[in-house]
Amino acid sequence: MISNKIKEVLSPGILEITQKIKEREKKGKNVINLGQAVVDVLPAINNTYMEELLNNTKTHLYTHDAGDIELREKFMYFLNAKFNANIDNLNELVFTSGANNAFFSILSVILDKGDDFLIPIPYYFNHIMAVQLNEANPVLVKTENGLINRNIIEYSITNKTKGIVLVSPGNPTSLAYKETELIEILKIAKNENIWVILDETYSMLLFSGPDTFIRLRQEFDNLIIISSFSKSVPMAGWRLGYIISREDLYPLLLKVIDTISIAPPTISQLILKDMIDKMPKIYECIIEELKIRYNKLSNSIGEKIPVDGGCFVWYRLKNGLTGTEYADYLLNKRDIAVIPGKVFGDDRYIRISFGNVSKFPKNLLE
Amino acid sequence: MISNKIKEVLSPGILEITQKIKEREKKGKNVINLGQAVVDVLPAINNTYMEELLNNTKTHLYTHDAGDIELREKFMYFLNAKFNANIDNLNELVFTSGANNAFFSILSVILDKGDDFLIPIPYYFNHIMAVQLNEANPVLVKTENGLINRNIIEYSITNKTKGIVLVSPGNPTSLAYKETELIEILKIAKNENIWVILDETYSMLLFSGPDTFIRLRQEFDNLIIISSFSKSVPMAGWRLGYIISREDLYPLLLKVIDTISIAPPTISQLILKDMIDKMPKIYECIIEELKIRYNKLSNSIGEKIPVDGGCFVWYRLKNGLTGTEYADYLLNKRDIAVIPGKVFGDDRYIRISFGNVSKFPKNLLE
Repeated sequence: MISNKIKEVLSPGILEITQKIKEREKKGKNVINLGQAVVDVLPAINNTYMEELLNNTKTHLYTHDAGDIELREKFMYFLNAKFNANIDNLNELVFTSGANNAFFSILSVILDKGDDFLIPIPYYFNHIMAVQLNEANPVLVKTENGLINRNIIEYSITNKTKGIVLVSPGNPTSLAYKETELIEILKIAKNENIWVILDETYSMLLFSGPDTFIRLRQEFDNLIIISSFSKSVPMAGWRLGYIISREDLYPLLLKVIDTISIAPPTISQLILKDMIDKMPKIYECIIEELKIRYNKLSNSIGEKIPVDGGCFVWYRLKNGLTGTEYADYLLNKRDIAVIPGKVFGDDRYIRISFGNVSKFPKNLLE
Repeated sequence: MISNKIKEVLSPGILEITQKIKEREKKGKNVINLGQAVVDVLPAINNTYMEELLNNTKTHLYTHDAGDIELREKFMYFLNAKFNANIDNLNELVFTSGANNAFFSILSVILDKGDDFLIPIPYYFNHIMAVQLNEANPVLVKTENGLINRNIIEYSITNKTKGIVLVSPGNPTSLAYKETELIEILKIAKNENIWVILDETYSMLLFSGPDTFIRLRQEFDNLIIISSFSKSVPMAGWRLGYIISREDLYPLLLKVIDTISIAPPTISQLILKDMIDKMPKIYECIIEELKIRYNKLSNSIGEKIPVDGGCFVWYRLKNGLTGTEYADYLLNKRDIAVIPGKVFGDDRYIRISFGNVSKFPKNLLE
């Protein structure tokens, strides 16, 4: 009585780690969580504004499936003014309940059972799961550091390939594409009629300053952007993200969103609407804070490689252990939780998140 | 480059009506919205508690995929104490981002491409869409009033049938199953290895008092309950619902939820946690208010048939017009928005929602 499809879908690797942390904590240990991809900075929510919102009936009802119209307009203007996004039609911007919700929704619009969809290794595991839930085939593509190039995409494409997902800056690598590199990839994909879904969840947290590649959609209409407010504002628990895609996908996206979510949470949207003007300042503060945390992180658990932004370090282990073994060692001997590389498709590594530890303990300091 | 699957999925009928209302309002008309399924009563959210929540970092991070553990425990005890729910394992209760999110998630766990899934007419259109998104076949089942019986299910089941969805009280009918009727249906379904998904979104708003059929799971492990806090608390915009199902489905449900939502909004869960003790009182107040609104509703737009609860009246038209024609007439001549029965699979009717009109205009009063 259970679906065969669901049996094939990957289990979310993070939940297993969460379980292990809980067991350790039950033993009375104080675990330092360098696992979860969160930034534990309080978002700038005004108490008086919140009180007003709560007293308004509309706050408690649904918004339009694609999000509150005023919010969409305001955010579209923001993206156009700050990042030359050149979005000229509101229906190109759809709000979602986070970036996972966005990715699943857009995949449901482009994939059929049996299609191939390219995913570079190391991958964000939910991308694989979303492809599998759509009964398409995740085709894993080897890379040096998570970033692909024109050669890799050229030899990976077959006539079954429907699209590829790129993450910039990467999760787990925190490495970002350069514009020239991305344009080369987009050219090949466009020639081959392949969708490029660019996950920019961390792009407003680039250490060189917030940025987005939305502007490249002018030349490449096969480029779809998904993003999130979870890390950049940061409002992870409030479940808000967005999709920027061609207008003809809009009515199809609404079919998916209406079915799986109806609409993103109204309260989250109304708070965000009030926050847009302050966003440049918010981004700046969070980037500053993340830089401080990155700099404080020691090499005591592995080599601290340079990152372009975001909140991860993707450590290549040099001690002969697998990521799984080393993560278990760190948890059980040093009470530090990290994610083994296995979860991202390469167990020679571990992923360290420095986003949710405002005060590093001594043994992680330089 | 677009999925064939998505082209087959029904468009959400409500969005078309929303568009028509907006056009009417642009002409300066004040439209009375008897369309949307919402209850416009302010939920009981404490401002001081909210301020505390906002100042706590955890409020802004994710909860566990299945919801905050304390919330799940507290709500499980509540259901067991008030409704003899007999939930003995926390993993039988999973919080979701609303009932649509719950329904899609559970369908993804039980359906494969090509499976048949029974949906009684009049239907809730998102049920059809969720079956189609899973590439299964919605098999529409004729009924007199939305409720099926043992005869109807017996002759509807084939060897391709994987399950059926029942809504009690119904949307759009607001008619509820009696326990004896439901047990007859469950017996047949269990014998035939068919899942019964019971959508109880409106069951806490039964005019005879809040209730749920969760207790029947003791005898029928093929019964899965989905529900929502959108109408009963009422917190529609806050996106919270739940699934009650067999423990072996739990890890499979987490796969879907992690992929499409990660977790329900944290703020909504924390508010709900604080609200559980007050729920009996809240239900009572809302039922009282809905009864008043139902009683105020006149027969001026159609025959007001009796309802068991919830916020809808499902009017059978007697004037020779279709639901679509009559809904257009009401909107354009009387500035009243209702949903044509076509949206629910039977255009001899219209659906009137009396949940979101605290003060009915004169021409709708008795």
